[in-house]
This record gives sequence, C-alpha cells and structure tokens, in this order.
Amino acid sequence: MVSDLRIGIDLGGTNLKIGIVDLYGNVIHKTSVPTGCGPDFVVGSIVATVNTLMKRAGVGMNQIATVGIALPGLLSTRKGVVIRCANLPGWDGVPLCDLISKALRKPVAMENDGRAAAFGEYRVGAGRTSPIRNMVMLTLGTGVGSGIILDGRLVQGHAGRAGEFGHSIVKLGGELCGCGQKGCLEVYAAASRVHNRALRALENSSAESSLRSIDFRHGAPTSSDVVAHALSGDPLAMQIWDETCRYIAVGCVNAAHLTDPEVIVLGGGMAAAGDFLLRGVTRHFREQYWNVELPRADIRITEAGNDAGLIGAALLAGEVSSVTMVNQFTENIKAPVVVSLNGCPTENL
Amino acid sequence: MVSDLRIGIDLGGTNLKIGIVDLYGNVIHKTSVPTGCGPDFVVGSIVATVNTLMKRAGVGMNQIATVGIALPGLLSTRKGVVIRCANLPGWDGVPLCDLISKALRKPVAMENDGRAAAFGEYRVGAGRTSPIRNMVMLTLGTGVGSGIILDGRLVQGHAGRAGEFGHSIVKLGGELCGCGQKGCLEVYAAASRVHNRALRALENSSAESSLRSIDFRHGAPTSSDVVAHALSGDPLAMQIWDETCRYIAVGCVNAAHLTDPEVIVLGGGMAAAGDFLLRGVTRHFREQYWNVELPRADIRITEAGNDAGLIGAALLAGEVSSVTMVNQFTENIKAPVVVSLNGCPTENL
Repeated sequence: MVSDLRIGIDLGGTNLKIGIVDLYGNVIHKTSVPTGCGPDFVVGSIVATVNTLMKRAGVGMNQIATVGIALPGLLSTRKGVVIRCANLPGWDGVPLCDLISKALRKPVAMENDGRAAAFGEYRVGAGRTSPIRNMVMLTLGTGVGSGIILDGRLVQGHAGRAGEFGHSIVKLGGELCGCGQKGCLEVYAAASRVHNRALRALENSSAESSLRSIDFRHGAPTSSDVVAHALSGDPLAMQIWDETCRYIAVGCVNAAHLTDPEVIVLGGGMAAAGDFLLRGVTRHFREQYWNVELPRADIRITEAGNDAGLIGAALLAGEVSSVTMVNQFTENIKAPVVVSLNGCPTENL
Repeated sequence: MVSDLRIGIDLGGTNLKIGIVDLYGNVIHKTSVPTGCGPDFVVGSIVATVNTLMKRAGVGMNQIATVGIALPGLLSTRKGVVIRCANLPGWDGVPLCDLISKALRKPVAMENDGRAAAFGEYRVGAGRTSPIRNMVMLTLGTGVGSGIILDGRLVQGHAGRAGEFGHSIVKLGGELCGCGQKGCLEVYAAASRVHNRALRALENSSAESSLRSIDFRHGAPTSSDVVAHALSGDPLAMQIWDETCRYIAVGCVNAAHLTDPEVIVLGGGMAAAGDFLLRGVTRHFREQYWNVELPRADIRITEAGNDAGLIGAALLAGEVSSVTMVNQFTENIKAPVVVSLNGCPTENL
C-alpha cells in the first residue's frame, strides 16, 4: 500500500485539531479535542487522538507518510524543538517532533501556526488559483499570526522566523504588546484588542449603545459581539469595528509594499465576519495606500478556514525529506529535555 | 574575445554613475557625470559617457555582455519601462531599456535603485560572506530605498515592487509622506528629514546650539552637519541624531521580524556617519526589539558604498537571459512612447 496520506495537527491553546490529509491538501477525516495542559498530557492526547481517528477512518499507519504539527510561538523547526510559546505554558525547550516521532514511528516536522496556515491557504484556499505565486496571510485571532509566500514558497528566513507581520511596529511609541515591543500590529488588529477597545469605549463614554445590554461578567463584548451589533447599526459598535478595519488595513498596506503579492488573505477568528470585514479593510486599504499607483493586491477572506493550519502543517511536513527529519532527531538533541509532570505551569512569556 | 564584462549604470536625480563591472562584481573602470534633465538628454549622455569610458579603459563593445540600469521610482522591469519616478521628472512611460539597447546594441535590464543596491551589497559588500543568505538593505538618502535578499535571491514579488520598507507605515496617522501615505518609514528615517528636524528644532527652541552658526541661506544644517555637530558634543544635534537613529532602528526591527535576515545593511548618504550611525541604530534596535529572544540580525554599514547600485544593476542584468530581454522589447512595447524634447518637465509625483 502506498503511503500517500499525511497527518496534520493544529495545536492551539484551546483546541487540538487533527486531520488525515491527502497529497492535494484535502482533509479526509478530522477531529478536535480540548488541548489540555502540559507537554506530557498533550503528547499522550495527540497519540491517542491520532490512533482513534485512524481507526474510525479505517486508515492504517502504513498509509501515513509524514506528520506535520502547527503550533504558536517561536520554534526551532530544524531541530523540532519549541523555543518559546506564549499560549502553551511549560512547553519551552520541549523536543515535540522527537516525542511524536517516537510515539507514532513517523517522520514529524513542525511549523509556526501562522506560517502553516498561510501555506495551507496558499495550496487549497484563497491562494490556490494557479497564477498566484505571492501571498500574505494575516490570521486575526487572539494575536496576529502571519506567513508570506513568495514565488510559491513559504518564506522562512535565516532561522524560520520570517513573516511576523503581527510584531512589526506600525505605531512608533504606541501601546505595549505582550512581546515587549511598543506599537506592534497585533496590539491594534487582534480580536482580543477589539474586545478591549469595546470595553474601554463603554467605560469612557456615556453614549447609548446596544453593546451595554451584553453580560459583562463573562468578559464580553467579544469581537463577534462588536460585529453583530455593528451589523445591527449600533453607532458605537460601528465605530469600533471601523477603527479595527483601519488598523488591519495598515497591515495590508505594509504587506503590499514589502512583498508585492497578488493576494492578501485575512483568516483567524475575525474572518468569521466575512464580507463585513472584507469591505471595511478594503476601503481603508485603498484610502491609506499611496497615490503613486492603484493598489495591486487583492484582499480576500480565508477559504480554508479553521483547517488552514493543519492542512499547511501536513503539506509542509511532506515537503521535508523524511531522512533529514529522522537524522535531525538523533543528531541535534544531545541533551534530551526532561518533560515534567508538574501539571500546568502558569508562567507566560 | 569573451564577453565577460558588464556595464552598470546608476541613474540618480543628481549624478549619473557608470561602471564597467566584471563577473564577480569588481568595478574595473568607472565615471560620474551630472545627470542633466529629460530622457532625451540623459539617454544621449549615457551613450556618450559609456563610449568615452570604454575608450579610456581600452575595453571593446564585444567584451560587454549586458547593460544594467538602476534608477529610482516605480518601474516595469519586465517591460523595461519607467512607470513613475519622483526624482526624474518627465520620465513616466519612457521605455528606457529599449532606448539604451538600440543605442548600445546590447541587452539591457533595469532595476529600482534600492533593490539594485541591495543586490550589489549582497554580492560584493557587507552581505558577501558565504553563510549569509538573507539580507535587508536600507539606503538612507533623500528617501529611504530598500531591497530584500531571501535565500540568496533578490525578492521581486508579483510585479517587481517588493521590498519597499521606505513606504511601510511605522506611525499610524503620522506625518504625510511624498507618496501620499501617512507615517511611512521614509518620513522619519531619510536624510532629508534629519535636515527638516534640525531646522524645526532650531526655530522652535531658544536652546544654545552650535548648529546656529551654520549659514541657513543654503538650507543647512544638512544631515551631515547634524552628525558633525553631534560628534562635537552639541546637545541639540545629539538629540536630533539620537531620534533619527531610533527611527531607523524601527525599520530594522520590522526588517528582522518580516524577513529574519542574518544581516541588515545601512547604506545611502547617511551611512557616511559610519560607526556613529551603527552604534546609535544598534542601541535603539536592541531596546525596541521584542523580549521573546535576543536579536539575531547583525546590523552593518555598507561596504560597497556608492558603487552598490551600479554593481547590483550590472550583476542583475547578467542574470536575465539576453534572449528574453531582446524579445521583450519587440513584443511588449506596442505603442512606443514618444520622448519629447521639451526640456525639463517640472511636475513631480
């Protein structure tokens, strides 16, 4: 039997999504479970979930060529080791590829989730049309992830850190970002910041707003509340949403000037706003773009949606030579990292 | 005789630099003349200057394989046509490659000057060391030019517009740039802005400063005046210079996050400040860079200096197939642009 399938894993702070993906990026079977906490638990959960999924799908391990994992944070993709991961506390230094490779007996590769999603989107989503060779994707979630495709290839840079639009400075001396910089795009364009902006606006103004009817005890209004109320015509929600679209448009202007792509794709949780997001961002993009010539990049909403990350991880893993991956694990990890069983560490970035 | 030499032309708003360059990027002979104005005059001047230089150098036209031209502004590098050029008024729509190719009977290619300089710097300057595969260059002159090298190749994007760090927005809602955008890096980091900042500081403050001794009638103080007075310990000049270094450092932070390069090179007129620029920018770069990990990119001063542009243009032209270039001229320029003899048009961007 030919090993022409791949396993794609999207390891998020909240959910663990696993799919069986074919050579073309089609998701044959998939499942999602809560992530849980700590590397030991999660590695065990990944292995158990993969096995259950394979059984349910009637797919044998001999049909699987490679495994790809997408996860947030800084990674050494070459060594298969997590360096720093804000949303997965306790994972710093964990040789995740090695652990999964030993358990599943398959070559495993990892990629930052923003970059993996960009690659997935490029191959099977909004970037799949054949003349497109250059694409930027911004994933607008709790943070702003991103990835750049140039001439059909995912841009990695010197050590696999390239493409971090979320942490490019768009407001010199601006608000403090979780990363320690001031004025990062993430501080203005992430879904979590829409929520903050809404809370602040409600606290600092006495204006009538339907947003006030939301139960604040649960941390609402969320970005989707803001979208819903803006769509219903609430002026305050409309203003917050418009401001958000303007910030995202700055990211698009910079993406256009820096990489000259055919397409800029908006993904992540906020992409659920669909056309409402697209119209707002496109309008501000055109307004802010230079007057030297008309904008050339087309802004689109994700088509691969929530599967972009696992598809991208699966396809990228398939492009790395298995031999290289196996050798890496034995050569590079000289002092294996001890994975503790201390439960969930609480320290963050 | 083997055609193993190339002609590199750096067509600037003030000076026209022409060099004979070998396969390795060494400049064998070079010359510089004032640019003059209008496409007709300049094309004639290029042809005459090339002929004089060749004669002086004892090099025959049969030894020249290709000609490369670097010039500022938006170009259609594929068609060899100038689209818009702020510093060369009257050049919009001029099929420069075709004109030079017909006159010199050689294949001619063109590239934006910032990108050509980046490529020249990568091949023979601060980026030439063999392990370096990823580099960003910022040319800090009247404007801020730039180019990105990824995996050893100059990044072009969809239509050869990629790498415009100068027009990425670093201050949302900031000062108006000549391009029509607000808050571009160019507005804060260009040499001309150092001059403006100094003038403003002198007008708006009564502080003692040795900069006041400069003859203002000639538009002084220039950025090099600011450097000289800051080096002599003048507090106001030191403050203006420090602020400038901070702005340039924002460009470096963004370059680091977006392309993850081994090296970021500072070139252009301001690079004449050498170590004084390097120390200031590096300090602010480290201060502003995220705290997730230490900066990995090394900031350097140009080593190819003023020749970077013509070397880059010469080497890039050598990498484009001559056949492609010749075919382009006959295929793409359907309606030849009439080059007028109206003298110097004055309209700008």
